[in-house]
Amino acid sequence: MVDKILKMNQSRDLPELEFSTKIRVRYAETDQMGYCYYGNYASYFEVARVEALRNCNISYKSLEQSGILLPVKKFEITYHQPAKYDDLLTIHTRITQLEGVRIGFNYSTYNEDGVLLNEAHTLLVFIRASTQKPIPIPSDILENLIHKK
Amino acid sequence: MVDKILKMNQSRDLPELEFSTKIRVRYAETDQMGYCYYGNYASYFEVARVEALRNCNISYKSLEQSGILLPVKKFEITYHQPAKYDDLLTIHTRITQLEGVRIGFNYSTYNEDGVLLNEAHTLLVFIRASTQKPIPIPSDILENLIHKK
Amino acid sequence: MVDKILKMNQSRDLPELEFSTKIRVRYAETDQMGYCYYGNYASYFEVARVEALRNCNISYKSLEQSGILLPVKKFEITYHQPAKYDDLLTIHTRITQLEGVRIGFNYSTYNEDGVLLNEAHTLLVFIRASTQKPIPIPSDILENLIHKK
Amino acid sequence: MVDKILKMNQSRDLPELEFSTKIRVRYAETDQMGYCYYGNYASYFEVARVEALRNCNISYKSLEQSGILLPVKKFEITYHQPAKYDDLLTIHTRITQLEGVRIGFNYSTYNEDGVLLNEAHTLLVFIRASTQKPIPIPSDILENLIHKK
Repeated sequence: MVDKILKMNQSRDLPELEFSTKIRVRYAETDQMGYCYYGNYASYFEVARVEALRNCNISYKSLEQSGILLPVKKFEITYHQPAKYDDLLTIHTRITQLEGVRIGFNYSTYNEDGVLLNEAHTLLVFIRASTQKPIPIPSDILENLIHKK
Repeated sequence: MVDKILKMNQSRDLPELEFSTKIRVRYAETDQMGYCYYGNYASYFEVARVEALRNCNISYKSLEQSGILLPVKKFEITYHQPAKYDDLLTIHTRITQLEGVRIGFNYSTYNEDGVLLNEAHTLLVFIRASTQKPIPIPSDILENLIHKK
Repeated sequence: MVDKILKMNQSRDLPELEFSTKIRVRYAETDQMGYCYYGNYASYFEVARVEALRNCNISYKSLEQSGILLPVKKFEITYHQPAKYDDLLTIHTRITQLEGVRIGFNYSTYNEDGVLLNEAHTLLVFIRASTQKPIPIPSDILENLIHKK
Repeated sequence: MVDKILKMNQSRDLPELEFSTKIRVRYAETDQMGYCYYGNYASYFEVARVEALRNCNISYKSLEQSGILLPVKKFEITYHQPAKYDDLLTIHTRITQLEGVRIGFNYSTYNEDGVLLNEAHTLLVFIRASTQKPIPIPSDILENLIHKK
């Protein structure tokens, strides 16, 4: 059943699984260059994907409580322009991959002037906490992601 | 026995339980004011007290693995001067209290020019992870702290 | 004029200068104890006071751009209960002091169940960026804070 | 002259520009998964490359004071295994690119058991602070990097 959903899913390009989140740059997150420190986006994207999942009725907190973890396997980001202190950023999050044990997200960060600040990608793997081994995407997660559309 | 050690211990003023740690300010830790962000010292002091405990043959990591946590109950800091990027700070850590379920630490942070940057205090409580309830300072911890002297 | 306002102001107890902000605990902000790391509240309170000032038509960003900085001189926090991952915290911020070169804020953090998690205080000092010396609270800031009431 | 050095440089594969740094995982840097949070490596690699430059007699702090900034343009990381609390990590840093306005670094992070935890790459661009425009790698920087060999 999961396989079938997966196949259905892979045959589509998942364009509707898109969500946007707003995050304001904190003073703590600036550096002496006057930029939002380049390392802070990883936590912004974590917030963005958790909110995207919440929008699909998936609580990452509940997922963990059920014994499933979703660590990041790969993270890539290209910086076009820096964010500055107090900027209210909009992060567009899109699920780009749902396959086997993996889920992939793309992120685009814009400032209030609509300038594209950076583009990023994360690949995450579903693992069972007790074994620390990868597991297929749980079927209820998959269904929530697909029925969202 | 623990009570006896505690009593012995309280009758002293614990002056030798002092230790110093060096921490270099990372770029990530600066803010656009050009200072080390005021909120970063909490993690510096955590490093300082873990190193102070290690110096007394106490591994905080092992303590946690044995089911005991040491959360912070109180934290106070007075900032005299800011630390700057790349400053190699010296943090002097002193145990100021060992009593019942609590351990208190004082910290003084100096830069390379010997300027006192800030003074702080943390009060921590020993708790059992399984119950989340306070427990008396474990006797082996206490003995390591006292025999260090 | 400023002196007069200050005097007026000091004669009151400033009870209405209260504001509340919501902050959700990020995964990045948890620690392996399963708590929101004790050092993260400093940045939460920075967000809370910046939002409180914004609510009084004071932009901290603009203040800095005009050459005035507002570093923290003192920070104190007492932890009653830990915040957990994904908790939507409410921080109540109150200005408790407006005097000479200083502004004081009190913070109370509650979780969604209305449990008081911690109470904190910060004392900040207005300084001129160019001289790094304290200056009296700018009169327009003061008026915004007072007229807010 | 700089062009000539650049050309000389590009014809080599820069294998000796390698340096290793030790960083211990702080409690603040763990998350409730019990891992070092995936977003913290960006600041570890910043420390690693600053120490690598220092080893070549290049002070990033002085570079900034001379009006030159070195923001990150691209960051990629693949996580093989998580680091845990108190792990003493060894980060091997290698300069992989020195070309025009850019400098590239590769990083490999190992734990105390010699396990490869992750591999990463950052591409940075030299810019003039006053103009925020890219500039060629300063010749003294280049010479220090090359003569280090």
